[in-house]
Amino acid sequence: MIHFESDYLEGCHPRLLKALCETNELQTVGYGTDEICDEARHIVENLCGETRVSVHFLVGGTQVNKTLIAAALRPHQGVVAADCAHIATHESGAIEATGHKVLTLPAVDAKLTAAAVDTYCAEHYASSTAEHTVQPGMIFCSNPSEWGTVYTRQELLELRKVCDKWSMALYMDGARLGSALCCEQVDYDYAFLASVCDAYTIGGTKLGCLFGEVLVISNESINRDFRYILKQNGGMLAKGRLLGVQFREILRDGLYLEIGRYENDLAMLVKRDLTEKGYRFLYDSCTNQQFPIFSDALIEQLSGRYMFSDNGRVDEGHRCMRICTSWATKKEDVEQLLRDIPAAE
Amino acid sequence: MIHFESDYLEGCHPRLLKALCETNELQTVGYGTDEICDEARHIVENLCGETRVSVHFLVGGTQVNKTLIAAALRPHQGVVAADCAHIATHESGAIEATGHKVLTLPAVDAKLTAAAVDTYCAEHYASSTAEHTVQPGMIFCSNPSEWGTVYTRQELLELRKVCDKWSMALYMDGARLGSALCCEQVDYDYAFLASVCDAYTIGGTKLGCLFGEVLVISNESINRDFRYILKQNGGMLAKGRLLGVQFREILRDGLYLEIGRYENDLAMLVKRDLTEKGYRFLYDSCTNQQFPIFSDALIEQLSGRYMFSDNGRVDEGHRCMRICTSWATKKEDVEQLLRDIPAAE
Amino acid sequence: MIHFESDYLEGCHPRLLKALCETNELQTVGYGTDEICDEARHIVENLCGETRVSVHFLVGGTQVNKTLIAAALRPHQGVVAADCAHIATHESGAIEATGHKVLTLPAVDAKLTAAAVDTYCAEHYASSTAEHTVQPGMIFCSNPSEWGTVYTRQELLELRKVCDKWSMALYMDGARLGSALCCEQVDYDYAFLASVCDAYTIGGTKLGCLFGEVLVISNESINRDFRYILKQNGGMLAKGRLLGVQFREILRDGLYLEIGRYENDLAMLVKRDLTEKGYRFLYDSCTNQQFPIFSDALIEQLSGRYMFSDNGRVDEGHRCMRICTSWATKKEDVEQLLRDIPAAE
Amino acid sequence: MIHFESDYLEGCHPRLLKALCETNELQTVGYGTDEICDEARHIVENLCGETRVSVHFLVGGTQVNKTLIAAALRPHQGVVAADCAHIATHESGAIEATGHKVLTLPAVDAKLTAAAVDTYCAEHYASSTAEHTVQPGMIFCSNPSEWGTVYTRQELLELRKVCDKWSMALYMDGARLGSALCCEQVDYDYAFLASVCDAYTIGGTKLGCLFGEVLVISNESINRDFRYILKQNGGMLAKGRLLGVQFREILRDGLYLEIGRYENDLAMLVKRDLTEKGYRFLYDSCTNQQFPIFSDALIEQLSGRYMFSDNGRVDEGHRCMRICTSWATKKEDVEQLLRDIPAAE
Repeated sequence: MIHFESDYLEGCHPRLLKALCETNELQTVGYGTDEICDEARHIVENLCGETRVSVHFLVGGTQVNKTLIAAALRPHQGVVAADCAHIATHESGAIEATGHKVLTLPAVDAKLTAAAVDTYCAEHYASSTAEHTVQPGMIFCSNPSEWGTVYTRQELLELRKVCDKWSMALYMDGARLGSALCCEQVDYDYAFLASVCDAYTIGGTKLGCLFGEVLVISNESINRDFRYILKQNGGMLAKGRLLGVQFREILRDGLYLEIGRYENDLAMLVKRDLTEKGYRFLYDSCTNQQFPIFSDALIEQLSGRYMFSDNGRVDEGHRCMRICTSWATKKEDVEQLLRDIPAAE
Repeated sequence: MIHFESDYLEGCHPRLLKALCETNELQTVGYGTDEICDEARHIVENLCGETRVSVHFLVGGTQVNKTLIAAALRPHQGVVAADCAHIATHESGAIEATGHKVLTLPAVDAKLTAAAVDTYCAEHYASSTAEHTVQPGMIFCSNPSEWGTVYTRQELLELRKVCDKWSMALYMDGARLGSALCCEQVDYDYAFLASVCDAYTIGGTKLGCLFGEVLVISNESINRDFRYILKQNGGMLAKGRLLGVQFREILRDGLYLEIGRYENDLAMLVKRDLTEKGYRFLYDSCTNQQFPIFSDALIEQLSGRYMFSDNGRVDEGHRCMRICTSWATKKEDVEQLLRDIPAAE
Repeated sequence: MIHFESDYLEGCHPRLLKALCETNELQTVGYGTDEICDEARHIVENLCGETRVSVHFLVGGTQVNKTLIAAALRPHQGVVAADCAHIATHESGAIEATGHKVLTLPAVDAKLTAAAVDTYCAEHYASSTAEHTVQPGMIFCSNPSEWGTVYTRQELLELRKVCDKWSMALYMDGARLGSALCCEQVDYDYAFLASVCDAYTIGGTKLGCLFGEVLVISNESINRDFRYILKQNGGMLAKGRLLGVQFREILRDGLYLEIGRYENDLAMLVKRDLTEKGYRFLYDSCTNQQFPIFSDALIEQLSGRYMFSDNGRVDEGHRCMRICTSWATKKEDVEQLLRDIPAAE
Repeated sequence: MIHFESDYLEGCHPRLLKALCETNELQTVGYGTDEICDEARHIVENLCGETRVSVHFLVGGTQVNKTLIAAALRPHQGVVAADCAHIATHESGAIEATGHKVLTLPAVDAKLTAAAVDTYCAEHYASSTAEHTVQPGMIFCSNPSEWGTVYTRQELLELRKVCDKWSMALYMDGARLGSALCCEQVDYDYAFLASVCDAYTIGGTKLGCLFGEVLVISNESINRDFRYILKQNGGMLAKGRLLGVQFREILRDGLYLEIGRYENDLAMLVKRDLTEKGYRFLYDSCTNQQFPIFSDALIEQLSGRYMFSDNGRVDEGHRCMRICTSWATKKEDVEQLLRDIPAAE
């Protein structure tokens, strides 16, 4: 069986495993205050260029989302997100458990548009009963989005403008950021994100780490006392250096982006081939997740040999499959898959 | 510098590292639903004997405490704990952040006594304004306690009885359970704990794992839908199999207890030697944390070579030091330390 | 200026004011444990017929909603509501502040349909990642709805069936229940609601009380320790007898329904007259709130003499107005209004 | 039976009842935005002198405490309070339900001392693991305290200094503020409290209102968007003018302080007489609650005719009783009581 159902099927990239093995005997203090974490933080700071940032390492995505949101919002504020956003749909109410409503808006290409947010905020503040409703306090966006699309530089600048206009924070969940930063449509880097967002993450789990998310905070008022809130949310790893070791290794010389490029290249192989064969895609993704629409017959036929994740029925006779590539995906497996998929009827 | 300040200074036990390396390329589904986790769960179930238990793997201690407590209590209920309990003092209000008050009682030997809890509950329910106060809904105990002492079989049975009497759950935080189970005073095992507690943990981080806590739940009503609550609290690791790999390895043939025995043996070396030399201890610990009282002069003298953790001033001229042993502590280092400590004045 | 913008513009019905004055000097114990509250509770119990219920008196609607929902749900559960439901739109995130997500479904005639809930639940439990999403734990419905429509006996029985099928509680917000119970389409009473709902409210504020909502709970497991949760949510009025006095008076001999009938009669006057004159309504309300669609010109023309509440633009040139009747609305004012409204163009 | 067990046994002062009756037919907008509330707010603003304050009216004490605390603290912060503070002991975990820990310190004369808070804060910030504990973010004090004692001007200035030193807010719960402001030891007024506190309340329920607490906020950052948080906590009364009517009447010409003086005078009668007769008091209260220690025999003897509230056993043979006076207490009843109490043995 060849697996394409997700990008977190294996352990970690060999270089990270090696780094973990080599540092295993080392003695360090706990909770992310060790020198390895310091070095890793320093690397991230450098990547962020002129913007002064604070850097934290957390284990997982839900954790980082709920911790950052709890740190940034006052009790009556909610977080504006696309209706397909992970925090709205797939975190078991983690955000609400911190007391905050997720205010969803219809997505365009799985992305939040500045115009939609602006209209929403304008209506909120125009209402005579604004105080009877949840105040929008933050924009949450996933980049790449849940459907593999990416925000352009222009779109991010517009979201920033809306945030400034309505006194909101801009937070970007970069669970697969490496894939976004390496795709053709994207002409920005870590430093740009640090300048445009109040906070964003550089996701490790889905780019070759055992686990881990880098949280980059450029807004000092959000960062104030952040480590208390990290601890309160169960996000302070005792052997914090495990995060430091991995991120130092993956970020020090560009391995992170190399992995992003690698998996994008394989994903583009899939995209081009299937497009040429006449397949449609649910979304026009330029990153490592592709969402082709297959007939039930084709799915049945491939099921003995390949695993995809099933994104549901599109119409009678067709379903949308997610094909995911990762640092561990073999090019020959992708080529084999494409040979096994005939032209669309 | 030789380090005795904590038992989570290094990575993990070599056997666990080996297991992680060997399984690194393996492809598994995520979130703890893979076969390795299943095997690890099965091992724990067997260790728990006749009591039917549900087993979950979480990354860290604060996380497991807040998740279990949130799952077990109704909104108006609090958790009764010793005044020195970790959840009361060192988790940054994580329990309160889930909405629940920690109701502290004075500890005896750093332990909660059944009598104190019974009196507390009796007074609560006797009050005509009980409903204006927080209802005790659970007993939390650490075993070993924060000061290295352990609960006897009899003490646990009495806590159980109090829980039954007042409709409370009994939850034991076993962050260093391996050390407790291997100390002389303890004549019970995993199965006994499963039968006496509603839930307890088998801590990995402080016994040689990279990270991880096994949560054993014997109370079905607490376990109902537990994985939703796990996810909501950010406690569901994407590559959950990392926990499975470690716990399968450390629990399958007794390595966990072997580590506990090893660190206890070294701790007893320290305890016997210092006792003979006339030192006092803040608490009579039988586990891997020892709390001798040293003069400022001695502390100064040892400080160039050894690291302890400082547990604060005891009187003018003396402080309490924590000396911690772990799977990675070398016997010769302990012996060297003891040679370097003269008889107490 | 004649006011039709809401049904809580005045103090209370004269009979209630008289009862408050007459009992003002009386000395009673606090927090709703006095004899007057007991009598009022007894009256409600009798109204609920054979179903054994517990009765609580709270000051306001948001308070009662958040308290009941917090008492009924476990942490990972959300409450299913129509997209126009008050708890979803107009309570400033009060439900989320208790940690629970409001799961909204498209409403039909401002009401939740059993079919929509059933589909939603079926999809939830069919999903392989159900535990990554919020579990539907309760149905919330307003009756009358936010747009004045009412649930039929059949619709409520169907919601009950869906609740039983998916282990959910059924909670009805009856902020204007008196108006619902007195409208032509409704052939059920308090007792039926007690039998079909796990909990429902009999709203006082909008039916002639100074303030107050009766909360009727028929599900014992929700009611267990409810007064603790009441207190925790700030819902236990010190001079609780003020609620007892009002509800004893308004419920003892049918005054509550008399008021409902009175305001419905006036509302029907409006509805019939405007219908005859050719006006459209945004919703087909049979209760005390009517939502006619007026031209901007007409609104302008009436604005010097009448106050409505503005429910927003319907199309270029038209807006939806809310006309509300209450115990204090004078029939001659309604008649005058209708005389001042010409036939629709 | 003559009642001394509390100061909220009756309805409201006749002048307030009259004001409620006279305004009953008046039509006003809801939620505290009407002109009567505006006038009442204006009166409070004037009473607060040069300090610019924002004024809100809430129904009850637990509600105002939890709402203000939720508005003022970030998630990792707790509120420092005396161990006997109402929020620590008698609000069913309402503060914890908003996510915040109550950090209790031993009280002196039922009051928090600046020195104790200063030491606590100094130790918190000196700790290398401060971020593993709850950050003190606010001082909560009751004035009068739960045991009837009052804070002196000097004590409040010192609490203010400690707050400034450690970046905390100072919040005073004045549930019985009228009694404090009228007692001999107190030489400050509303304006002083506005200048020294970030927020304080002027309690109505226990000084002759049907219900209601005035919340005075002088710290603008706490007040920002406060009405959203008010609504979220169920603290926005639909017919908000009921609060406006009462507070306009009781504050416009000093009735509030007149009531405070009246009940203090009666309480001093009790205090002087019992002191002369040789009775001890649990606390040296100068306000309307007195806490004499009576023998079981005396309690038995008085029980047929008088009601006190029982504050528990003091020693074998004696209990502490609370004798409370209110606007409705009759002087002749107090005199009768004192005649019925013989000299202490």
